[in-house]
Amino acid sequence: MNGQLSDNCRNTVDIFQAGLQAVAPGEAIKTFCQLDGERLKVDGQSYDLSQFDKIFVLGAGKAAASMGKALEEILGKRITDGIITVKYDHLEKLQTIKIQEAGHPVPDQNGLDGARAIYQLAKSADEKTLVICLISGGGSALLPLPVAGVTLEDKQETTKVLLACGATIHEINAIRKHLSVIKGGGLAKAVYPATLITLILSDVVGDDLDSIASGPCVPDSKTFADCKAIFTKYSIDDEIPSCVLIHIEAGIAGQVAETPKAGQDFFIKTQNVIVASNFNALLKAKEKAVELGYNTLLLSSMLEGETRDVAANHIAIAREVQLHGYPLQQPACILSGGETTVKIQGTGKGGRCQEFALAAAIKMTGMKNVTVLCAGTDGSDGPTDAAGAFADETTVQRALIAKLDPQQYLDNNDSYYFFDRLGDLYKTGPTNTNVMDLRIILVGSQSTRLEN
Amino acid sequence: MNGQLSDNCRNTVDIFQAGLQAVAPGEAIKTFCQLDGERLKVDGQSYDLSQFDKIFVLGAGKAAASMGKALEEILGKRITDGIITVKYDHLEKLQTIKIQEAGHPVPDQNGLDGARAIYQLAKSADEKTLVICLISGGGSALLPLPVAGVTLEDKQETTKVLLACGATIHEINAIRKHLSVIKGGGLAKAVYPATLITLILSDVVGDDLDSIASGPCVPDSKTFADCKAIFTKYSIDDEIPSCVLIHIEAGIAGQVAETPKAGQDFFIKTQNVIVASNFNALLKAKEKAVELGYNTLLLSSMLEGETRDVAANHIAIAREVQLHGYPLQQPACILSGGETTVKIQGTGKGGRCQEFALAAAIKMTGMKNVTVLCAGTDGSDGPTDAAGAFADETTVQRALIAKLDPQQYLDNNDSYYFFDRLGDLYKTGPTNTNVMDLRIILVGSQSTRLEN
Repeated sequence: MNGQLSDNCRNTVDIFQAGLQAVAPGEAIKTFCQLDGERLKVDGQSYDLSQFDKIFVLGAGKAAASMGKALEEILGKRITDGIITVKYDHLEKLQTIKIQEAGHPVPDQNGLDGARAIYQLAKSADEKTLVICLISGGGSALLPLPVAGVTLEDKQETTKVLLACGATIHEINAIRKHLSVIKGGGLAKAVYPATLITLILSDVVGDDLDSIASGPCVPDSKTFADCKAIFTKYSIDDEIPSCVLIHIEAGIAGQVAETPKAGQDFFIKTQNVIVASNFNALLKAKEKAVELGYNTLLLSSMLEGETRDVAANHIAIAREVQLHGYPLQQPACILSGGETTVKIQGTGKGGRCQEFALAAAIKMTGMKNVTVLCAGTDGSDGPTDAAGAFADETTVQRALIAKLDPQQYLDNNDSYYFFDRLGDLYKTGPTNTNVMDLRIILVGSQSTRLEN
Repeated sequence: MNGQLSDNCRNTVDIFQAGLQAVAPGEAIKTFCQLDGERLKVDGQSYDLSQFDKIFVLGAGKAAASMGKALEEILGKRITDGIITVKYDHLEKLQTIKIQEAGHPVPDQNGLDGARAIYQLAKSADEKTLVICLISGGGSALLPLPVAGVTLEDKQETTKVLLACGATIHEINAIRKHLSVIKGGGLAKAVYPATLITLILSDVVGDDLDSIASGPCVPDSKTFADCKAIFTKYSIDDEIPSCVLIHIEAGIAGQVAETPKAGQDFFIKTQNVIVASNFNALLKAKEKAVELGYNTLLLSSMLEGETRDVAANHIAIAREVQLHGYPLQQPACILSGGETTVKIQGTGKGGRCQEFALAAAIKMTGMKNVTVLCAGTDGSDGPTDAAGAFADETTVQRALIAKLDPQQYLDNNDSYYFFDRLGDLYKTGPTNTNVMDLRIILVGSQSTRLEN
């Protein structure tokens, strides 16, 4: 395509950008929060601001600054105080809310300092305080506050042991929450008896509130006894730092408090709202595709699994569209989201989205008029400067002319250089949001409708 | 379920059986071929039988006997002569058409004898003969007729070398067709100048006429030079039997004839009709699901890839249905077909369909009211006596109560014993047809509609 986007590619970009716009932090916050006189309306609930003495804004995550900016635009000087932790350089100019920059994905001292400041502000909230908490991807690493007697290094060592023994992400999170003051409902407990609204930008498949940033404002379903059972299950008592074991035992003995549980008072005055998710992006992308004249199928926002298999499944659907007019007629737009994985076996450079496009290009051999765009909503696909890549029925042919063997590039996980050589990378730069990936497959062009 | 099928399971069976009925050889032949006085109507084309002196029936495949029976029921004594080759024990009582039983998947002397007899009858056809050829899965192994100077063993040795060097199925077929008198259009050439109707029951993803039984009645797109290039590409000249190399070189030198090519006279009076395919089965299954009150999505008849990934993708769609009402509203029925693969890493017993059901059961954790049936249309899933298995949201829980660890059974590729213990295998016995697999996923039950 060499800088000259085809009409179909341009359509995939328009559809992608429509989805992206819906999940831009500012847009997302403003969609779900409106000020009407003294009433703050949040996703169907209404708060009378005159009932509150103070409004605090807390939070963490890569998009927290953008979310904070939108909130300041809505509430202005009504915000009494605030502090949020963001990844280095993920800044915005804010009026009242202070910003702490910190390390991600590896937590650092700045993160500890930020978490402590956030926790202190949270504790100072009272019955007449409205606390608004802003959560987005990266929030877990950016809010490290270990329980007394356990250091950040102890927590990290514990996580390392759990990863090595093959514990599931749910098991690891159960332990993490029991070693943190903030995670697993800790922040909700800290602000109690204030009123708490949590605005969430979800980067987790299925939008599980429990998992996004380790659920600082939602009940924890696991207990200290569950944690001990996990250590026993994997026979790792010897490898876990002793201070961690002591803390877990103290919890079982009732000497330290359990993480907050469902039904407890901490959660009576809380509202959790997902303001932006992969599904929100897909829904807006679908609207755009319909506007452009495509029959559209919103397949799922929750696709995971090995990238090339997921790509093959998408192209199998595209083939059915072309061969039999099922599951929908041409011109068709198939949309999906989620985040796939790549079992790396080569030494090349690429990302899951670029690999999806490459695998799809190979699978669409012999088809006519199919265009694919797969890209990450954060603008950064794997360790590359591209968000994703385009593929269409000409990709393999153009590659062969350029002496690139598509299968060889796929086997070497070298999708970045493949699409770079063809001029088919999709670069957006950082987007300031992250709701995982979007995949757009167009089958037939809009003119197909006329030809039929 | 223990013999007591739930309402949802019963619905999946009804939907599966509706699909199966559409591709039963007899039903399929009668849908596409009708006799109206002296006119035989075949999928939109009409043949005046009074113009023909003779009607021959040829063919091979596991379903050939059942197809032959249906054809005899339509044409009766109008059939002059016929011979078909079937797998041992795949018999029917026929009037005129002779049946040769032979080895499958490994060809044997009986197969050679049958192919020779079929070829001789084909050669005896003239301008006033109507030849009807019946092709179904297994037809390739059941129609072995090597070119002069090459034995069956030479062909088998060649295939073995090609498989070992990593040649693609398309490359292997290119060679095979050039070593066969019948494959790659050879049968069409043999019956020329007769009129030829080929009725096909497809067991190939995408219904590629070229691939089904190695395309005895369709043009071959590959040349002797292509064959030589394949040997060179994999550097296997030393391993290929010398008689095979000699034949290929003779072909390049023009000393033996090329396989029949598109545009040649052999194909002027031929009609190829796919009378049964995975898509046909899905379409009827869809009708049944609609009749039962489900919103239905016919996803694709062409799904391939690693079974557990394909299962995860299906459940991700089911989750979207339940969470957001996309791509369709509950009660929903998602239908797909094709044939997945299993990278065997364990030592258990199972088949791709049973493994699909097990992987799906694990992935549906936390969901409500989801029911899966995945089964092979031939009634035989892998080396087991089951066609497939049922799974629903109770499967994992019931397994744990029975002290079966679902993940462990999946890791060991031991889906047969898993479902056998739960009483959730689906057994149909041999069905006499094969259009690969059907997958049926119900989300919500019919009563969900009333509850909404």
